[in-house]
Amino acid sequence: MSASTIHPTPSVGAVVPQRVTLTRPLALACGVSLESLDLAFETYGTLNAARSNAVLICHALNASHHVAGFYADDPKSVGWWDNMVGPGKPLDTRRFFVVSVNNIGSCFGSSGPVSINPKTGQKWGADFPLVTVEDWVDAQHRLAEHLGIQQWAAVMGGSLGGMQALCWAIRYPDFLRHAVVIASAAKLSAENIAFNEVARQAILTDPEFHDGFYDRHNTRPKSGLRVARMLGHITYLSGEQMEEKFGRQLREGLKFSFAPEFQVESYLRYQGDKFAGYFDANTYLRITKALDYFDPALAHDGNLARALTPAQCRFLLVSFTTDWRFPPERSREIVRALIENKSEVSYAEIDAPNGHDAFLMEDPEYHAVARAYFNRIADNELSDAALETA
Amino acid sequence: MSASTIHPTPSVGAVVPQRVTLTRPLALACGVSLESLDLAFETYGTLNAARSNAVLICHALNASHHVAGFYADDPKSVGWWDNMVGPGKPLDTRRFFVVSVNNIGSCFGSSGPVSINPKTGQKWGADFPLVTVEDWVDAQHRLAEHLGIQQWAAVMGGSLGGMQALCWAIRYPDFLRHAVVIASAAKLSAENIAFNEVARQAILTDPEFHDGFYDRHNTRPKSGLRVARMLGHITYLSGEQMEEKFGRQLREGLKFSFAPEFQVESYLRYQGDKFAGYFDANTYLRITKALDYFDPALAHDGNLARALTPAQCRFLLVSFTTDWRFPPERSREIVRALIENKSEVSYAEIDAPNGHDAFLMEDPEYHAVARAYFNRIADNELSDAALETA
Repeated sequence: MSASTIHPTPSVGAVVPQRVTLTRPLALACGVSLESLDLAFETYGTLNAARSNAVLICHALNASHHVAGFYADDPKSVGWWDNMVGPGKPLDTRRFFVVSVNNIGSCFGSSGPVSINPKTGQKWGADFPLVTVEDWVDAQHRLAEHLGIQQWAAVMGGSLGGMQALCWAIRYPDFLRHAVVIASAAKLSAENIAFNEVARQAILTDPEFHDGFYDRHNTRPKSGLRVARMLGHITYLSGEQMEEKFGRQLREGLKFSFAPEFQVESYLRYQGDKFAGYFDANTYLRITKALDYFDPALAHDGNLARALTPAQCRFLLVSFTTDWRFPPERSREIVRALIENKSEVSYAEIDAPNGHDAFLMEDPEYHAVARAYFNRIADNELSDAALETA
Repeated sequence: MSASTIHPTPSVGAVVPQRVTLTRPLALACGVSLESLDLAFETYGTLNAARSNAVLICHALNASHHVAGFYADDPKSVGWWDNMVGPGKPLDTRRFFVVSVNNIGSCFGSSGPVSINPKTGQKWGADFPLVTVEDWVDAQHRLAEHLGIQQWAAVMGGSLGGMQALCWAIRYPDFLRHAVVIASAAKLSAENIAFNEVARQAILTDPEFHDGFYDRHNTRPKSGLRVARMLGHITYLSGEQMEEKFGRQLREGLKFSFAPEFQVESYLRYQGDKFAGYFDANTYLRITKALDYFDPALAHDGNLARALTPAQCRFLLVSFTTDWRFPPERSREIVRALIENKSEVSYAEIDAPNGHDAFLMEDPEYHAVARAYFNRIADNELSDAALETA
């Protein structure tokens, strides 16, 4: 039994986000070159002397570099994967040095639509180029260099984050020993793209969008962003879960009006309002496009195994039975391709009720799989010295 | 072999919509009473002397009374269920007298937001009350009286139309001998309501909506209606079908912009534009609410069998394997309740690729089931005299 189960500690505690500006230009897939990169990131735990215990966490659509812990001035600001990352957690920060970075094109401190365009001194707004999963991985690679990391023990992510882990394995095969790909897919389906497109159209046709320069008009396309989020939210949950949580429950009886009547309506409106209050519309547009674009097999006639040929790391894939956004079959496709390549791959299909969001939840079976996988890495690969520093 | 398969005829031909104003007030579920009812309807075939061969077709969200044939001035204006209804079609108009009516609250000629409020001489707009499936059935019942029909041979509908057939069986049990309920459900799920609510919010928050009085501002909330339709459209198709039809096909390569890149994006935009060009937003809001409200079991502690106790007719239920809006399980719930009541019920689960839209498609197995069911009605129940008039 590991120390973590004897003395569970709840959190990495108060954390401080860091920022760095990297001045080497980055050529993006779209053809534009960013002259410099602002990157907001956080780290938890300690890099060992061998620099062998670093794990990169990649975020999905609406999250950020704030993965674990909280900010001292706001105890409620708990990181989005705090149940996964911390002392005694499945990814144990007493053994691993965890790095997370806000992806470029996002809106939480890294170069993106709400950051300053160094050329103009103004916010980028709609002038910020469209970015891809490959661009994100390139930026993350730059950060690794900056931090003096030559190889990740693991790159880990859920959903769009899992796509980044997959991309790392193909694009920088020497740079990681493990890829942990959770509730993800090797490419979006037509239906996935369709949902993204409806969300984008809600934003693009909001009169407050102003071609993406809403900032200059002192406004924000909140209505469109709200609808986009409400829609997205439905696809994150399972139908069963919505049924169990809300069913046809009414708030105060039928009103024969368009006021919220069913609890599920109130819930979605609340989620939409909350999201529209803090998220950036240009970012939402760009991140959904990055999702749509990701398709490493495209350059290999759709042959995923061939696309994954460069990969040298070991893989853990996890999917969830009720996830209809990226159902288990999408993970199995990746597993089959890896097996075809004779890559080492572990796969867990977790029977969980929470749909796509299950990857964020503290499901015992799921966390046990992640914990066992990381414990094996720590026990087998990290030096005694490294363990002592933890 | 019936005459229909020897001499298939394509259509009921040119049809002329009819209109009637019924001046007896109709009390709606919301508490409002409509002083008079304008009803737009069509009929195909001939009512027999015994008045025993009338079939009512109920329409779903965006359709109308124009079920079969075409309008002489526009040969492309083919009715929405023309493959089902006509001479030699599964519902054979040489044997049956088919009636279809535009539901109140809709926008194709019956009393609704775009019709004239007799009290004001102005369009109803947002003042038109919210209506329910029960209200529609009551209005259809009034039309039957007006047409001198004392009993329907069958009431038939798909999706929301199937809910009306179910409602008829409960509300006017003496008035129909058969209920044909296709791709339907006894109530919406939380997820169904959630999708409807996102669509409504897209419309309600469109600045051109003007609290539903857009007509007074010489505008229409087209953007919201377009997004609502794009979203709805995704739920009408199956994921498999979208994958096969569009997959990840691009129009002209990646553009790294928000122009349509994937074929599925173009398709959805086209569908959204087309719909927003002719449909009324107040109608869309009301019909989605009628969907949400329908729940005959609610007054019986959720016991559907008890809700269906009054029903005296025979039932045909049909569902489609890839329909994820109203999946087969929702039809099976109804079938189980009817069996519990010892009602006579036939049930067909059709293996079709077209998702919810399958009920509109000319699937051979599906049409064979409907054809056999109606042939049995005609052979067993209609008098020789009736057959001679056809």
